[in-house]
Amino acid sequence: VAREHIVTESIPEELDLREALQRAIDSKTKPLGSLGRLEALAVQAGIVQRTTRPSIVAPRLAVFAGDHGAADAGVSPYPKEVTRQMVRNFLTGGAAISVLCKRAGLDLVVVDAGVDDDLEPHPRLVDAKIARGTRSYLEAPAMDHEECERALERGAALAGRWADEGCNCIGLGEMGIGNTASASLLTHCLTDAPLESVTGRGGGHDDRGLARKYELLVQAVSRGGRPRDPRRALVEYGGFEIAMLAGAILGAARRRMIILVDGFIVTAAALAARAIEPTALETCVFSHLSDERGHRIQCEALGVAPLLDLGLRLGEGSGAALAFPLVQAAVDILCDMASFESAGVSTAT
Amino acid sequence: VAREHIVTESIPEELDLREALQRAIDSKTKPLGSLGRLEALAVQAGIVQRTTRPSIVAPRLAVFAGDHGAADAGVSPYPKEVTRQMVRNFLTGGAAISVLCKRAGLDLVVVDAGVDDDLEPHPRLVDAKIARGTRSYLEAPAMDHEECERALERGAALAGRWADEGCNCIGLGEMGIGNTASASLLTHCLTDAPLESVTGRGGGHDDRGLARKYELLVQAVSRGGRPRDPRRALVEYGGFEIAMLAGAILGAARRRMIILVDGFIVTAAALAARAIEPTALETCVFSHLSDERGHRIQCEALGVAPLLDLGLRLGEGSGAALAFPLVQAAVDILCDMASFESAGVSTAT
Repeated sequence: VAREHIVTESIPEELDLREALQRAIDSKTKPLGSLGRLEALAVQAGIVQRTTRPSIVAPRLAVFAGDHGAADAGVSPYPKEVTRQMVRNFLTGGAAISVLCKRAGLDLVVVDAGVDDDLEPHPRLVDAKIARGTRSYLEAPAMDHEECERALERGAALAGRWADEGCNCIGLGEMGIGNTASASLLTHCLTDAPLESVTGRGGGHDDRGLARKYELLVQAVSRGGRPRDPRRALVEYGGFEIAMLAGAILGAARRRMIILVDGFIVTAAALAARAIEPTALETCVFSHLSDERGHRIQCEALGVAPLLDLGLRLGEGSGAALAFPLVQAAVDILCDMASFESAGVSTAT
Repeated sequence: VAREHIVTESIPEELDLREALQRAIDSKTKPLGSLGRLEALAVQAGIVQRTTRPSIVAPRLAVFAGDHGAADAGVSPYPKEVTRQMVRNFLTGGAAISVLCKRAGLDLVVVDAGVDDDLEPHPRLVDAKIARGTRSYLEAPAMDHEECERALERGAALAGRWADEGCNCIGLGEMGIGNTASASLLTHCLTDAPLESVTGRGGGHDDRGLARKYELLVQAVSRGGRPRDPRRALVEYGGFEIAMLAGAILGAARRRMIILVDGFIVTAAALAARAIEPTALETCVFSHLSDERGHRIQCEALGVAPLLDLGLRLGEGSGAALAFPLVQAAVDILCDMASFESAGVSTAT
């Protein structure tokens, strides 16, 4: 079941709007239903914006960055310093997400949710640092409850600020050495999936690295358990960027922004957001199916079918940026195509 | 097996180039292989353009339009006049492909390959008309050999002209009431697929319409046979737009243009082009898997895996236009991303 089909079917006004949107699409000069998932996307955009003429204004992509105490133990093949190095790379335009956003017309923002460094100020960098990295969940909870609450609130507040600035469509990405491991632990907590089924190669572990990572995550669970409560799961396993992403989803949904969810790590945040607020994913578009082990299980748990399947496993929001033109196309079709009547085209017999 | 992996692996200089391209991609600031199919696309673009720094210049989308004598017999649920009505709609900007091209930055051109009408001149309309529609293949061959040759040549000449004008990337689409039926017959001739397995709902047949269409196509085959030669198959079953598309693929491949192949009908033209010239598809990118029955079989016969799978079955080149940003993104990643060295990012341990 694609996400687009399960948006708030219970509210009568939305049923009327949904019908009006479908009628509008069906009047366009094309065989009925022939634009497939773009049509469902167009309906979703209309429902999200509560109009039959949705539009995308000042679209933005936000990369939330944070460090993980457990990174030093070997849950990632990359050293921890790569988080801050990549933040700089985002800001100077050399990263994949920089290049993809530029092409797609997405304004790139980087949010320091908890990078283990004092980052130099930059016009595209938002300082929302909770702390310089989480604690290692191998030894203690990754953060305390107050930090978790603060991360959720800051994420929501940032989304609200962006909405105030006129942005109505936000792509969400992340950067954080070790955060695939965090996302695996969160997914294990917030779905019924066994830990092994959601533990993957992340930045590129070989078989030995993957086996070592899995061992470490088993050790983490033997310490921290499997909390089913989203806040408690975030407290145990982090990271700050994931908690802030969950907050951003909650805040953006409240402001009726279209949210483009990226891959495995942002979907872990979406699992947490849904557990906090069951309607939080109504405005989400799931952009791509990641190659990272466990993403399919997350999507099944959420009942969503991502738009793209290109074997990506980079993160940063790259899948969200690549799916953005599809959302734009869906809106254009609804708003700019001629109807059979206006174009004087004969209908099917 | 994705098309990108099977491009001319036999020529030594191309093997060197392929290696240089892969090295360039592997030096970028991202985990090895993490951009999945985009990486393979970037390599293909480099191989097509014979450079490690490919670029997309003056990209264009050409919709080839033609009428089909058999349309009157009921192979389509739409009346034949819709072909010329839709051509007008393309030119005035109201069709799906008009809207999608505008957004994607693709220059839209419409080629009259054989519309059954005297179309008014328009700056975006190319008059390459072979005749006012094909004959009905239920009664006679759709065209004669001379017409077929002319259509192939004009298609190739048009691609050459566009290359001369500086365009190095061409999306291919089509319009022609009845052309899904033609494409089914061609696919039956040019693959091992039984006719029924490649006969689908086209513009939207219900079960009864589909059964009727299949009956008509069986009747056509009982008259015209199952010629395995591409020219003879085109002569028997048309259409002019499909023959001209096959010519355009041949011509564009010769000029080393990147070709974005749309859905079922353009892929039928690709089958014909490959049968004429086995290396003709080396510069093709298969943009999307159509919902039209038979497209999957065509793709399997060609050994290609389309990029998108969005349930589209519109034609016009809509899938090609939607996949175009992915090609652009692939080229951008190769040309604009920083390397680990240039960005000062640490590599994996």
